[in-house]
Amino acid sequence: MARRKKIYEGKAKILYEGPEPGTIVQYFKDDATAFNNKKKATLEGKGVLNNRISEFVMVNLGRMGVPTHFIRRLNMREQLCREVEIIPVEVICRNVAAGSICQRLGIEEGEPLPRSIVEFCYKNDALGDPLVAEEHVTAFSWATTQELDDIISLTLRINDFLSGMFAAVGIRLVDFKLEFGRLYEGDMVRTVLADEISPDSCRLWDIETNEKLDKDRFRRDLGNVTEAYAEVARRLGIMRETQRAANDESDL
Amino acid sequence: MARRKKIYEGKAKILYEGPEPGTIVQYFKDDATAFNNKKKATLEGKGVLNNRISEFVMVNLGRMGVPTHFIRRLNMREQLCREVEIIPVEVICRNVAAGSICQRLGIEEGEPLPRSIVEFCYKNDALGDPLVAEEHVTAFSWATTQELDDIISLTLRINDFLSGMFAAVGIRLVDFKLEFGRLYEGDMVRTVLADEISPDSCRLWDIETNEKLDKDRFRRDLGNVTEAYAEVARRLGIMRETQRAANDESDL
Repeated sequence: MARRKKIYEGKAKILYEGPEPGTIVQYFKDDATAFNNKKKATLEGKGVLNNRISEFVMVNLGRMGVPTHFIRRLNMREQLCREVEIIPVEVICRNVAAGSICQRLGIEEGEPLPRSIVEFCYKNDALGDPLVAEEHVTAFSWATTQELDDIISLTLRINDFLSGMFAAVGIRLVDFKLEFGRLYEGDMVRTVLADEISPDSCRLWDIETNEKLDKDRFRRDLGNVTEAYAEVARRLGIMRETQRAANDESDL
Repeated sequence: MARRKKIYEGKAKILYEGPEPGTIVQYFKDDATAFNNKKKATLEGKGVLNNRISEFVMVNLGRMGVPTHFIRRLNMREQLCREVEIIPVEVICRNVAAGSICQRLGIEEGEPLPRSIVEFCYKNDALGDPLVAEEHVTAFSWATTQELDDIISLTLRINDFLSGMFAAVGIRLVDFKLEFGRLYEGDMVRTVLADEISPDSCRLWDIETNEKLDKDRFRRDLGNVTEAYAEVARRLGIMRETQRAANDESDL
């Protein structure tokens, strides 16, 4: 494969220039980080699993009319995406209390929230991705009011869809993180879902046992991290193919 | 069990007075009808399956904050529900063209629609449940404008949720029919989801083969009707228990 230009290297993914103008290639690494990069590890096979799980989710969201950057999976670790301008806001949607909201608001982990809550964090590693209000997002022009409206309504739709998807396979969608981007098409701009949706970006608990099937296994040293990710893929019916492919990464 | 007062007998269900004021018991029959009652049959076990599938869907919708009439399943064929005043409008939500919209608008079955479409039919057997516009619904006071707004936004949420739920188990949600009711609580009125959600009220196609897993198997004499309903239950992980119970209807 010809040498490609690296656009950006993040904690769990690398972005390369795509084969056509307006496209990028998203490469899923096995690297895991937590606590704003303070904890690091390599989890063999994680990137392969996240690539497949995120493909499955994005394809199904696309079918529901949720616009995404996803075009198609290229191979075990890469997917072709539309190039977007990332809106520098992490969007968190919570159904059950877990993670940072527990400390901040003194809520017990596992407590159902009065309703689904959408939070925004300013995407800035140096600042530790601080929580902000809608007020800040528009005042600092990170997103326009119209973009923020689109982001909220898309996030709530995605929450309903993902909650159904995971409920069908015995998983509770506790919370998840989204990123959105601006897709320029001629003189039109559209807000589309970007980044990934995977056990790296969701909290997923077994509905019967509350066993964690997500990145908290890494954050909290619970072990069997990739095994949990593989379990999510298996329940969604995408495991067999992934397993087969993982044994033969020749298409890389 | 003491003799209960029958409130209403429909084509596939019987409603009885419930044990407490403000409750009803919904009994699922094995009867199937189609084409406004012109075609009839008894499909052994259908009521048991629909009771379980509808329970599964309603419980999960409730967890997402969609208000429903469902309280709990009582036994193999019955569920306890809140008594509501049924809004006399059938709400149909379509993702893919099938059924009446194909003939009416000359669209091929299986064609994806430009976006999800919500239709209303006036609930009236003598008239054959005719299609109406929002205009008629409010003009004839079948529902208020506020109720109609609630119905549309709940229907779109339910569509997202159910599409995710079925996509996770390899099923395309082609379309479905909902009924809503008025729940009186003191001097408050709320619009809640009523009736049932089951393969009697949804079109469900296998995502790979397009095999129909719904009532169209009965309408079109495709055979294996209850087998298809059982397959839906099995994929949603509610089959084993249902099967066991179906072999022992002693709790009736």
